[in-house]
Amino acid sequence: MPKNSLAKRARKRIPSFIAPYRIDRGKKFRLKDVDPSDTGPLESEQKQESRDVLQHGVAELSRLQEMLYAQDRWGLLLIFQAMDAAGKDGTIKHVLSGVNPQGCEVRSFKQPSTEELDHDFLWRACRAIPERGRIGIFNRSYYEEVLVVRTHPELLARQHMPSSLVTRDIWKERFDDINAYERYLTRNGIAIRKFFLHVSKKEQKRRFLERIDDPNKNWKFSMADARERDRWNDYMAAYEDMIRHTATPHAPWFVVPADNKWFTRLVVAAAVIDALDEMDLSFPKVDAAKRRELRSVRALLEKNGKAPKRTR
Amino acid sequence: MPKNSLAKRARKRIPSFIAPYRIDRGKKFRLKDVDPSDTGPLESEQKQESRDVLQHGVAELSRLQEMLYAQDRWGLLLIFQAMDAAGKDGTIKHVLSGVNPQGCEVRSFKQPSTEELDHDFLWRACRAIPERGRIGIFNRSYYEEVLVVRTHPELLARQHMPSSLVTRDIWKERFDDINAYERYLTRNGIAIRKFFLHVSKKEQKRRFLERIDDPNKNWKFSMADARERDRWNDYMAAYEDMIRHTATPHAPWFVVPADNKWFTRLVVAAAVIDALDEMDLSFPKVDAAKRRELRSVRALLEKNGKAPKRTR
Repeated sequence: MPKNSLAKRARKRIPSFIAPYRIDRGKKFRLKDVDPSDTGPLESEQKQESRDVLQHGVAELSRLQEMLYAQDRWGLLLIFQAMDAAGKDGTIKHVLSGVNPQGCEVRSFKQPSTEELDHDFLWRACRAIPERGRIGIFNRSYYEEVLVVRTHPELLARQHMPSSLVTRDIWKERFDDINAYERYLTRNGIAIRKFFLHVSKKEQKRRFLERIDDPNKNWKFSMADARERDRWNDYMAAYEDMIRHTATPHAPWFVVPADNKWFTRLVVAAAVIDALDEMDLSFPKVDAAKRRELRSVRALLEKNGKAPKRTR
Repeated sequence: MPKNSLAKRARKRIPSFIAPYRIDRGKKFRLKDVDPSDTGPLESEQKQESRDVLQHGVAELSRLQEMLYAQDRWGLLLIFQAMDAAGKDGTIKHVLSGVNPQGCEVRSFKQPSTEELDHDFLWRACRAIPERGRIGIFNRSYYEEVLVVRTHPELLARQHMPSSLVTRDIWKERFDDINAYERYLTRNGIAIRKFFLHVSKKEQKRRFLERIDDPNKNWKFSMADARERDRWNDYMAAYEDMIRHTATPHAPWFVVPADNKWFTRLVVAAAVIDALDEMDLSFPKVDAAKRRELRSVRALLEKNGKAPKRTR
């Protein structure tokens, strides 16, 4: 099949890739309704074809991002959350590598520093919100505050909040505050898409073993990662509750099956293209006055080329 | 009268200085109900006495701030808004000069830079929110977004927002977003007090003339300041609407009469002391284990003093 028609076909199929995984009203969401090994409309033998489709998607993304940058009105914030080895780094690499890095910035949120702990919990993320015209990628995010911090209460204690403010309502308050902040961002032209890469416990084990057995992957593995497996159910409950409370029409969650990396990447690429499509992007139009200015600058440049050099 | 008893009397009178000017439910607020020349319970002949009272207030502030810093749980954000020459700089200087600058930072918000305009409107303020244990002072703030930007629509155009997001609801949305952000901050241990220094148009004129006539004050005057007088009524309407929509119990506005600088300072000092009082501050208690540790370090230090110097 000629490649162009494949690209067109892929563009048309975007809704079928993303609709099943997009949650924009979270209230009744159940994590168990999403199968980590799902490959949507594709069969596993279409893995090779999926690579070609992804390649077209990446090219399309690059084209849209150039307009986003030129138009300089909207920003796009992509948030990635997942258990270890679910494929966050690989997805960011494969989906966004075609994009001009001048208009795209990845921020990885690791353990907070002492300075960060001494601030309100959104502080370190606020600073990294993308400018207009840019794509900002959060590899982990402020959602860690209702995931790892919720699962490990000792991390909350490290935040040194006044004790009268740490009540049983704290997670509900954090959900509300996050929702309000995301509503504010979208009102100011920062579109938000959130991805939970949903890997199974079994597939995580397989990938951990791979990291241990392959010397080139050893650096990606730590004992702490393995220990978090003991809290798998706590984490799943925290993820489910998070999605229930923070999936909104303006800042939807995508719960992306993540046992098959090639499928994860397709879904994410499709969702990002869809988000940019919604912005109705175009290169800024130049008006008659500006065209006249351009013509006179051209004349000036051509004239200068012929004129003798001026001395100081 | 002995100074100590003056200080105690002043402490007791704090509520009478601040209650008339504190607005924590804005709905029915009318700016014309506050007289810029009001001096509350004091007569103008008590100006000298008021200086002594302020001096005690500043000492008290310094004492409370030391505990705030040592305890390292709460932060305090003070926001100052006013027309030009209403006395923001002088109030900050006279009320907060006694405070250890290590625990206190002033951020002046001037015309936004190109980088700042390319971000969401709270971005530059978010970054400057004080850490726990600190007092942060905003000399102007994100409230400029519903004051000068509202009065000069051309400034809104400079923010390059997607045009579909700039609707007639924009000021209401900004009020909502600011309220949500301030609620979030207070939930995270950053207490907020907001001051509108309310000067009369007549007194502003007198101070402008002083700035023109006194060579040492010339630097404080610009033609642009004078031009804003033409929009006095627009500004007053914008201030009133802002206070109506953003005065909340957790982040109250103080509408402080500002025609008499000495009185403005007293009210602000009283409100800041009151805010710190509410935190129920104390120096961190040291437990038995920590006291044992301190004793053993003392023993070690004394022993080391007697021991011969170690060679490398």
